[in-house]
Amino acid sequence: MKTLIVYAHPEPKSLNGSLKDLAVATLESAGHEVRVSDLYAMNWKAVVDADDYGPGASRPLRVAADSGRAFDAGTLTADVVAEQEKLLWADTIVFQFPLWWYTMPAILKGWVDRVFTCHFAYGVGEHSDTRYGERYGEGALAGRRALLSVTVGGPEAHYTARGINGPIDDLLFPIHHGILYYPGIEALPPFVLYGADRMTDEDRPDIAKAWERRLLTLESTEPIAYRRQNFGDYDIPSLQLREGLEPAGRTGFGLHVR
Amino acid sequence: MKTLIVYAHPEPKSLNGSLKDLAVATLESAGHEVRVSDLYAMNWKAVVDADDYGPGASRPLRVAADSGRAFDAGTLTADVVAEQEKLLWADTIVFQFPLWWYTMPAILKGWVDRVFTCHFAYGVGEHSDTRYGERYGEGALAGRRALLSVTVGGPEAHYTARGINGPIDDLLFPIHHGILYYPGIEALPPFVLYGADRMTDEDRPDIAKAWERRLLTLESTEPIAYRRQNFGDYDIPSLQLREGLEPAGRTGFGLHVR
Repeated sequence: MKTLIVYAHPEPKSLNGSLKDLAVATLESAGHEVRVSDLYAMNWKAVVDADDYGPGASRPLRVAADSGRAFDAGTLTADVVAEQEKLLWADTIVFQFPLWWYTMPAILKGWVDRVFTCHFAYGVGEHSDTRYGERYGEGALAGRRALLSVTVGGPEAHYTARGINGPIDDLLFPIHHGILYYPGIEALPPFVLYGADRMTDEDRPDIAKAWERRLLTLESTEPIAYRRQNFGDYDIPSLQLREGLEPAGRTGFGLHVR
Repeated sequence: MKTLIVYAHPEPKSLNGSLKDLAVATLESAGHEVRVSDLYAMNWKAVVDADDYGPGASRPLRVAADSGRAFDAGTLTADVVAEQEKLLWADTIVFQFPLWWYTMPAILKGWVDRVFTCHFAYGVGEHSDTRYGERYGEGALAGRRALLSVTVGGPEAHYTARGINGPIDDLLFPIHHGILYYPGIEALPPFVLYGADRMTDEDRPDIAKAWERRLLTLESTEPIAYRRQNFGDYDIPSLQLREGLEPAGRTGFGLHVR
């Protein structure tokens, strides 16, 4: 595999830092190529603004149009271009981050906001009676797979079907489906560590074993079976799921899993 | 009302900018007090790091513990303290932002990550057989109400119950419930403008009218009826919804609405 690890934690000695280090060591030992985007170490600029699009940025700024134009012209900033190149190089992407307020830390959201430009991650492909662009299963990043490795402060019970925080699969759906699957990346079932705030050094060996197991079976892991957009499951252009396709009683985000 | 508007868009002349301006004008004309946190204009630091917690930050850094200690000691940075004071001053908070990749822009997530510190927005209240801290309906920000005013590129059909992006209420649940309701803020039904990328100047008067109507009825709008944590709907400490409380067939995030 060619694996890109996108890592977002301010403390190298954190649980997240150790999981990132272990992923690098485990994958390299198994003969895989690994590159790391350590967003804090890179002092990653988290905020989209006109500086991202060069001197050609329009006034007033139009984020979608300007980012697409800068992508086409090759005038995106070097930091963004480097991340896009890493994504194109990789066949596998691991995101390592703590769940803060039920989603990714701002620095990682800023990586998505800036790297996933128009004409790269969205605004791709033709619109017709049978196609609504290349997205949700198609797109520039098709053929790649990604894994979210997430640490969570609370206990697992709080993230189950009836748990107060909501089911973890639903909390991660906007990332799995809306960010990864949108430009074509297959999302693997996540690696989630609960109770991260209460972990002790004694817990670490078991965690390390479980993480190594996941890393070494990435190639044989089945992705979440999201429905592809342009292959008959959705009406076009309303993009509503056709009646009768879902198992009885399934509603919400779960409708979009085959 | 005392209204805080938290606004996150890089372009003052954008649709988001005009909605923010209209909110200020409309609320002030109606005799309400208004303060604005214009995150781009403030050059808001989006990224949590050790600099947030003063010279007393621990090594290695522990974000939850360090932020709680800095909050208690009054050593949080001035920018964070100012936002916490605005939240305590306000009885109503309006968040104005574009939906980027199905959630808030990084600069606004960074406002949450940095301002919602331990002992302010979480880690508050006692744990016992009948209470699991003060959260989900209780907490430092109880008694306040908030409205998300969100612009969305795609059409409304894509965000309905069967729409490919997922229902808008579910996409916003992690913000409404996980960020706002968690420290006690009641979430009002959102103001969502779809098709924002295709809007023309001719659409603006109708949008302005609809927005003014929402702003001038904020005080009489019923919040989303999320279930309170410590009042019998959830088992403690598993925080799973007790059996039989939900309308037949309701699953997912919707379980947590009475």
